[in-house]
Amino acid sequence: MPLIDTARFLRDLNELRQIGRYKTGVHRPTYSPQDMESRRWLLQRLEECGLKAEIDGIGNVFGRHKGPGPHLLVGSHIESQNQAGWLDGALGVVAGVALARAGLPVDVAAFADEEGHFEGGFLGSKSIIGILGEEEIDRSRSRNDGTPLRDALAAAGLAGKPRLRLDSGRYKGFFEMHIEQGTQLENAGLRAGVVTGIVAIWQWRITIEGMQDHAGGTTMAERRDAGLAAVRLLAMIDQEFPKHCGPRSTWTCGRITVEPGAPSIIPGRADILFQFRDIDMAVLERLEACLRACVQESNRRERTVATLTNISKSLPAPCDPAMMAALDTVAERHAPGLWQRMPSGAGHDAQYIARVMPVAMLFTPSIKGISHHWAEDTREEDLAVCCEILGDAAAAYLKG
Amino acid sequence: MPLIDTARFLRDLNELRQIGRYKTGVHRPTYSPQDMESRRWLLQRLEECGLKAEIDGIGNVFGRHKGPGPHLLVGSHIESQNQAGWLDGALGVVAGVALARAGLPVDVAAFADEEGHFEGGFLGSKSIIGILGEEEIDRSRSRNDGTPLRDALAAAGLAGKPRLRLDSGRYKGFFEMHIEQGTQLENAGLRAGVVTGIVAIWQWRITIEGMQDHAGGTTMAERRDAGLAAVRLLAMIDQEFPKHCGPRSTWTCGRITVEPGAPSIIPGRADILFQFRDIDMAVLERLEACLRACVQESNRRERTVATLTNISKSLPAPCDPAMMAALDTVAERHAPGLWQRMPSGAGHDAQYIARVMPVAMLFTPSIKGISHHWAEDTREEDLAVCCEILGDAAAAYLKG
Repeated sequence: MPLIDTARFLRDLNELRQIGRYKTGVHRPTYSPQDMESRRWLLQRLEECGLKAEIDGIGNVFGRHKGPGPHLLVGSHIESQNQAGWLDGALGVVAGVALARAGLPVDVAAFADEEGHFEGGFLGSKSIIGILGEEEIDRSRSRNDGTPLRDALAAAGLAGKPRLRLDSGRYKGFFEMHIEQGTQLENAGLRAGVVTGIVAIWQWRITIEGMQDHAGGTTMAERRDAGLAAVRLLAMIDQEFPKHCGPRSTWTCGRITVEPGAPSIIPGRADILFQFRDIDMAVLERLEACLRACVQESNRRERTVATLTNISKSLPAPCDPAMMAALDTVAERHAPGLWQRMPSGAGHDAQYIARVMPVAMLFTPSIKGISHHWAEDTREEDLAVCCEILGDAAAAYLKG
Repeated sequence: MPLIDTARFLRDLNELRQIGRYKTGVHRPTYSPQDMESRRWLLQRLEECGLKAEIDGIGNVFGRHKGPGPHLLVGSHIESQNQAGWLDGALGVVAGVALARAGLPVDVAAFADEEGHFEGGFLGSKSIIGILGEEEIDRSRSRNDGTPLRDALAAAGLAGKPRLRLDSGRYKGFFEMHIEQGTQLENAGLRAGVVTGIVAIWQWRITIEGMQDHAGGTTMAERRDAGLAAVRLLAMIDQEFPKHCGPRSTWTCGRITVEPGAPSIIPGRADILFQFRDIDMAVLERLEACLRACVQESNRRERTVATLTNISKSLPAPCDPAMMAALDTVAERHAPGLWQRMPSGAGHDAQYIARVMPVAMLFTPSIKGISHHWAEDTREEDLAVCCEILGDAAAAYLKG
């Protein structure tokens, strides 16, 4: 007899989809009336499952299992990006409800504002592990319309409520189910991805100072062309990074601007935004060393001055080997040969929860890889099989 | 006895400098009150020198020598860029006055709007060789404030005046003196440049279409990164162009933009403005072939689509060998070992006048290469020696 009632799971998902519905997706920005309605809907589902449910001062919805442990924590986030998909974080929250319905000893959480409608982002998961200060809440404003976070919390009826803190000793680990937000599973014809960890993102700015000159009067030998130096540096990175990267490293130059940007003027300045991602700290450090060497080599070769500045370095969040092993085993049972291990290139609540307990994630395929758009979707049979995998893996890991 | 009264030449230049004075430079945009005042000042100087002086319907000031030929045409333009230098085109016009004062059989011209304050640019030199149509005048507007050219001509009192046409059979050639607008003469410690010709500019747009994707969820192998394809293409051009260029070719990428330009989004589109310049048609054609081959190779190697579009192709204007030889000989006499031959990378009225008669240009050094800025300057002794070279070369070429 299967542990999970997949029909009920899909019914719950479709019921939640009606709240803030937008075309085939949803529009539930954090603390909006639609978002708060979805949180109240969730509180009812958690009570239905016999959990002690509450909402805290940052908007986290938390359902506490009343029986003895050992316990697991299961969940994700319930708000959406603007006019975005119906699954995304809601999938992991409703999967938590399904595990609770099945009688597993799980607490279920919907962490507030994983989507970063407010400056800082990940407010709920940061708050619940104790790294969100009151002054950060005082400072944060809506990225949509500038509303102070304090005002938004008050309007949502959350002002003055205490904020929950996780008792990490209570848990054997945290499971989060999520859509892949990419095309790897779909392209390989797979139904589930066992996440090996959430990559760290190291972001950099590279500025190159040259000399702005007239493109007619300045010989090639006289030039200090910041745009050309930027091209040569990025071409060098393109050559060198593959010698140092890991099997699933990614690196991206998302912005290049040259000034003044006129057809007959040699650029005097170039600005580059560059980032790389990997799950392995050793790989990240090798890539940083390679980047620094490329910038140094640019300054040796060119008559321009390149300056490298770090913007941010997040921490990689590797998933727990025993939890991954449990997912592997049951994935092979439910979808033989149709699953793989893979890193998560995007950020998730699990990356913060990983700081206080073991975590694991399970990815469902994303149709055409569409994410953060109302057309986002996953086949219902894939949703169902992944929820079964999550439930069986949770049960196996609790026993193990 | 020297042909040219250099003291008077410098006095004329400094007198003209007072009209529209701005800091150490001038502000005389085309058809502005200051510009029209400078044209009236010039009409007086031309009459003083015994020329028959007039201003035509596009603002050209023209002084006609009353005696027998053969004649030369000498001149440049008298308006300035906004808040720009005191010499630039004024230098060539006042040098024409100096040659007329010395009794040489020269007509002197100040061609209107070489600086392109109005759309189209080079209005005067185009008009006087017969390639500026009435409908082009009807369409053109000020690039500074959108004023229609017709309104500006009316406000300047030029509406309804006939436009002059050059009788090219009257002339053995056209001499234009101008500041270098670069640092080559100064860096080499030289006092004069005999211009070999005015380069052609061939301008191109390259658009690259890829696929916009999330930088986290898309593996390196899956990407169709338009920004990276742009970097690789520009790096290829940087490698290949030196194999095909002439000794003084220049090539410039003045603008690169990638869309959407966000740190975590793989660019889906890149736009490049690219140009090259040379005086030699065969070199220009080799560079075009090289550019087309690079774009083709990009499309062979990459999973993006690069499209090359020509924006404009101007004609190179080579200077006349006999006129250059006359300048060489007298330059060596006045400044032994302190002159060189060089192409003009920037455009000048001479490039249009070259379509109807032989032309030559003489460059004076520019201090620090500053141009189109009020700080533009040239040492007075260099101005003087160049005016002497121009006068003696004109006399020698007329005799030869």
